[in-house]
Amino acid sequence: MDLAALKSGMDTIWVVLTAAMILLMEGGFALLEAGFVRQKNAVSIIMKVFVDISFGALVFYFLGFAFMYGKDAAGLIGTSGFMLGGDLSHISLTISNDTYWLFQCAFVIAVISIVSGAVAERMNFHAYIIYTIVMTGLIYPIAGHWVWSAGGWLGKLGMIDFAGSAVIHALGGFSALAAAIVVGPRIGKFGKDGKANIVPPSNLPLASVGAFILWFGWFGFNSGSTLSATNGSIGHIAVTTMLSAAAGSATCILFTMLRYRKSDPPMVINGALAGLVGITAGCAFVGDGAAIFIGIVCGIAMVLATEWVESRTIDDPVGAFAVHGVSGSIGTIAVGLFAKPELTSGPAGLFYGGGWQLLGVQALGLIVVSIWGFVLTWSAFKLIKRFVPVRVSRDEELVGLDVGIHGVPAYSEEHDFIDLKQLNPTSIDAKKEQ
Amino acid sequence: MDLAALKSGMDTIWVVLTAAMILLMEGGFALLEAGFVRQKNAVSIIMKVFVDISFGALVFYFLGFAFMYGKDAAGLIGTSGFMLGGDLSHISLTISNDTYWLFQCAFVIAVISIVSGAVAERMNFHAYIIYTIVMTGLIYPIAGHWVWSAGGWLGKLGMIDFAGSAVIHALGGFSALAAAIVVGPRIGKFGKDGKANIVPPSNLPLASVGAFILWFGWFGFNSGSTLSATNGSIGHIAVTTMLSAAAGSATCILFTMLRYRKSDPPMVINGALAGLVGITAGCAFVGDGAAIFIGIVCGIAMVLATEWVESRTIDDPVGAFAVHGVSGSIGTIAVGLFAKPELTSGPAGLFYGGGWQLLGVQALGLIVVSIWGFVLTWSAFKLIKRFVPVRVSRDEELVGLDVGIHGVPAYSEEHDFIDLKQLNPTSIDAKKEQ
Amino acid sequence: MDLAALKSGMDTIWVVLTAAMILLMEGGFALLEAGFVRQKNAVSIIMKVFVDISFGALVFYFLGFAFMYGKDAAGLIGTSGFMLGGDLSHISLTISNDTYWLFQCAFVIAVISIVSGAVAERMNFHAYIIYTIVMTGLIYPIAGHWVWSAGGWLGKLGMIDFAGSAVIHALGGFSALAAAIVVGPRIGKFGKDGKANIVPPSNLPLASVGAFILWFGWFGFNSGSTLSATNGSIGHIAVTTMLSAAAGSATCILFTMLRYRKSDPPMVINGALAGLVGITAGCAFVGDGAAIFIGIVCGIAMVLATEWVESRTIDDPVGAFAVHGVSGSIGTIAVGLFAKPELTSGPAGLFYGGGWQLLGVQALGLIVVSIWGFVLTWSAFKLIKRFVPVRVSRDEELVGLDVGIHGVPAYSEEHDFIDLKQLNPTSIDAKKEQ
Repeated sequence: MDLAALKSGMDTIWVVLTAAMILLMEGGFALLEAGFVRQKNAVSIIMKVFVDISFGALVFYFLGFAFMYGKDAAGLIGTSGFMLGGDLSHISLTISNDTYWLFQCAFVIAVISIVSGAVAERMNFHAYIIYTIVMTGLIYPIAGHWVWSAGGWLGKLGMIDFAGSAVIHALGGFSALAAAIVVGPRIGKFGKDGKANIVPPSNLPLASVGAFILWFGWFGFNSGSTLSATNGSIGHIAVTTMLSAAAGSATCILFTMLRYRKSDPPMVINGALAGLVGITAGCAFVGDGAAIFIGIVCGIAMVLATEWVESRTIDDPVGAFAVHGVSGSIGTIAVGLFAKPELTSGPAGLFYGGGWQLLGVQALGLIVVSIWGFVLTWSAFKLIKRFVPVRVSRDEELVGLDVGIHGVPAYSEEHDFIDLKQLNPTSIDAKKEQ
Repeated sequence: MDLAALKSGMDTIWVVLTAAMILLMEGGFALLEAGFVRQKNAVSIIMKVFVDISFGALVFYFLGFAFMYGKDAAGLIGTSGFMLGGDLSHISLTISNDTYWLFQCAFVIAVISIVSGAVAERMNFHAYIIYTIVMTGLIYPIAGHWVWSAGGWLGKLGMIDFAGSAVIHALGGFSALAAAIVVGPRIGKFGKDGKANIVPPSNLPLASVGAFILWFGWFGFNSGSTLSATNGSIGHIAVTTMLSAAAGSATCILFTMLRYRKSDPPMVINGALAGLVGITAGCAFVGDGAAIFIGIVCGIAMVLATEWVESRTIDDPVGAFAVHGVSGSIGTIAVGLFAKPELTSGPAGLFYGGGWQLLGVQALGLIVVSIWGFVLTWSAFKLIKRFVPVRVSRDEELVGLDVGIHGVPAYSEEHDFIDLKQLNPTSIDAKKEQ
Repeated sequence: MDLAALKSGMDTIWVVLTAAMILLMEGGFALLEAGFVRQKNAVSIIMKVFVDISFGALVFYFLGFAFMYGKDAAGLIGTSGFMLGGDLSHISLTISNDTYWLFQCAFVIAVISIVSGAVAERMNFHAYIIYTIVMTGLIYPIAGHWVWSAGGWLGKLGMIDFAGSAVIHALGGFSALAAAIVVGPRIGKFGKDGKANIVPPSNLPLASVGAFILWFGWFGFNSGSTLSATNGSIGHIAVTTMLSAAAGSATCILFTMLRYRKSDPPMVINGALAGLVGITAGCAFVGDGAAIFIGIVCGIAMVLATEWVESRTIDDPVGAFAVHGVSGSIGTIAVGLFAKPELTSGPAGLFYGGGWQLLGVQALGLIVVSIWGFVLTWSAFKLIKRFVPVRVSRDEELVGLDVGIHGVPAYSEEHDFIDLKQLNPTSIDAKKEQ
């Protein structure tokens, strides 16, 4: 046992453990979204999360990873590493390529899960599966290649996005916005005058614990992105992550108290997430004070963005765009303002003597990635629509997707057994009756 | 601080962290089972999980560990290590014996939790406690000794079961089957013509998040089984685990779509678990492609097995046999087919030049362990039945075990206080009234 | 890469991972408390947990950490380290100061969360925020300084409290008792004759999984308190933690079976927690047998204390005092009885040849810390009361704090949208209507 083997082992367990934490975030997304939507659609949104984690992982194994981290072609796309095979010699890490794949796989699943919330309660399940394949095999990997891979053109320009405020959250958030627009609002969400009606969240305790699980996973997300257990920034990353999340949450407690006269639970839940999203790009590179500031700004912006989205009669049931799109954008730009040269070992933000250089690159990268996500998702939905409806039928939507699409309600207070003959033959175990 | 101390520390935190992840799986089992059963029995099944983790840990401390990992007697049973005392010098790990105990303790608790699901909604609580003691003190430790301990006869024959498709899941699954048969079906589950009636799961969001927690814990289960943080397989193990789970889940999404015309949420949940169970034996020894194939086969087999169990009028409320027994068997056999000699450092499966040798041993081990679990559990239940009923009374079953046995409902929408005099004196806090 | 850098990295990931586990306990607290209270207050208690984690973290960053771990003044209080700045050279760890802060921050949030349960269902939200600031900025940091900081007077006397049975749990529990008394019982909890009425817990599955998450987090809490991954006690700590929790839970299963004729789920849940609280002080220093004994005693004491609290017409909805105050006291004293000199490298408990010395110090420390918590919390509440009511209005309490204070119910079975005009303008999204 030599030092190098020890270090490699340590880096490996660090990455595997943090990857597992990020994958647990799917449980967090499932709870958050199931808690926010109406009861009649709570299972259908969780089924989408199962699509994310299962199809997402497989597609990223077969295609996505190669496009993202394979041998670079013209700064635009990767070309090797399908099924983890081929030449990946340009990836020189202390961890194995499959360990690296696992961590990146957890990321791609997070991206698609962001979109799942925005199309909740109305999207066709088949179309969602197809979109998941496109997102995890193409849209995200290519954008990710630009920023994160060796040779990606945005990365070469100097764009900094430590754990993905832009690549994960702005991309996911703007894709979510496009998806929400194309799919259209839920029946009854907006009155004839365009005024929004509200839907009472079906299960706020579930949504809350979803947020706590996401918060936990975020320590894996941000700290784990070092990919090395001996990286001196790990403690600092965890602290800025904590401070920004706390600031986002505290801000929304106070801001909704001022604005709505009562602390609003869904906004507080999303406020914590906004703080987490916002610090994701700069967690390793900004100071504690900046982290708190980012959390505050993201919290307020999330509330205002939620209102703005509704005012545009766009229906985003869980606030995916307000949380991920807006805070992801803020976080990306914030690096251009607050990056400390002693933390980045080089580039500095506007307020730390770096001038406009870094800020400009961050803004460019953000715009490119956001437009890419928005346009590609829009196009993908339009294309899918030609073959499969992207929306469930009116009847299915009214009865709810759980029973309408999946043949089983989320919650049942039934104490007795049900004679199968009375039921829709597609419900659980019904096969035996046929 | 020398290299050896560092390595030992690293191995220790790896094992402690993964053990904690496995123990969190009890929360996953609790949610999964509480979500799948009817509302009137949701607490009673969770109380069984508390029995698993508390009695299981204590019995394994006093007895089970010694029978499993103590000094070998004739390849059949361990004879030292009660309360972690006595001669355990044959265990030579870089971690301390108590760290090792903790990890193994997390395993035994998982085994008994598999059985808890199969007897849900009808088993007597006292009888369950007694069975838990027998399972965690005797049945599992002895089978485990055969395969995993230094000197165990199946291990010496060359049986490979990395993290327990056979020792944990097939044993648990076949024990669950025996238990379900002896206890008999729930009242009303089968009509007079033997046709199954269905019970709508009480809380699918809870069941789903239970599955995500189990998935998270499985990374601890499989990767942690290296017992060493510098084992070069850790990354590969985590990847095969992920791929098989994703394949199991994706397969069930598509297969139930074809078979039942709608993606069936409980089957998708169990499909992910089936993939996880199936890869458990071979996670370190098979390739990525085999892992995906195992996940697909386990997913389909789980659906078919669920139907088969019902067609035999056996009542297994959460599908414990279909998930753990069947996928555990497939996973054990799969090692005999797909094990790569470069990964096992020696033995190879049928498709990798190893001939029938390994496959034969795997089949033998699987049969032995499954029969052992089935017969011993059957016998234990029959024996317990002489002293304590294994089944609740008809009245308790009809009213539900939560109120009937534990004096409190799982869910209450009551907004006011209840005058104790109106209530059963056994409900919470009732003592004060007496 | 040299050995020291490797060790520092290893210690850092150990502390960051265990800190994340402790922070996940907030999700556990949220579920536990939301499950134990009535449905109409389930969100309001979770909002208090959001206050704990957000305000708690920020206040501890600005003030608390400095008072606790800053440069010692007269053994009474720390004086440097505000915002992690200033002279902290007396802290000489292998991890960075900010990593250390994160771990300690997770602790302080646990303390305030203990109190949140005791004031559930009736405390004013604004007053709770103010109290959180006082607790996390002043009350806990000062007591913590006495015991845990370099130079603290109780620590210098030789008090041993490894992971906080006294500093965290007794302090939190006695503070919870004071808070519950000052705020007064919920309307209807006690009849005119002083007899307690019962409230059926709204969601026991949620409460149970809260306990499993807390159990998981406790491995971080106790083992992580080594602050070093190469500390030889880590495995032992995890094992005593497991055994005591199992013993507490098993004891409550059997003890309530004897006492109430039925195993009582809420008591079993709290029994596991009581075992965990009790072993927290001595996890590194007592043997396995003592750990089991501590778990048994804490389990029984928790049941009796719950009854005693009610008999005094004190209303502690989730049993915060019985679990944390009582078991924390038992655990602190137990160190004075069972500490093994070979584990403490010095001091020994009464039963291990140490005489009365250690026991006396433990008792003194416990009394001081408990009185400090009780008196300061009492005073803080009395002071806060002059400016802000500590209790919600009668109407808000009767309608429930969720709708009354936060404008949204925890659970909604509503399948349709609600026209905003019919609603309280403070509910979610209502802003748009104004």
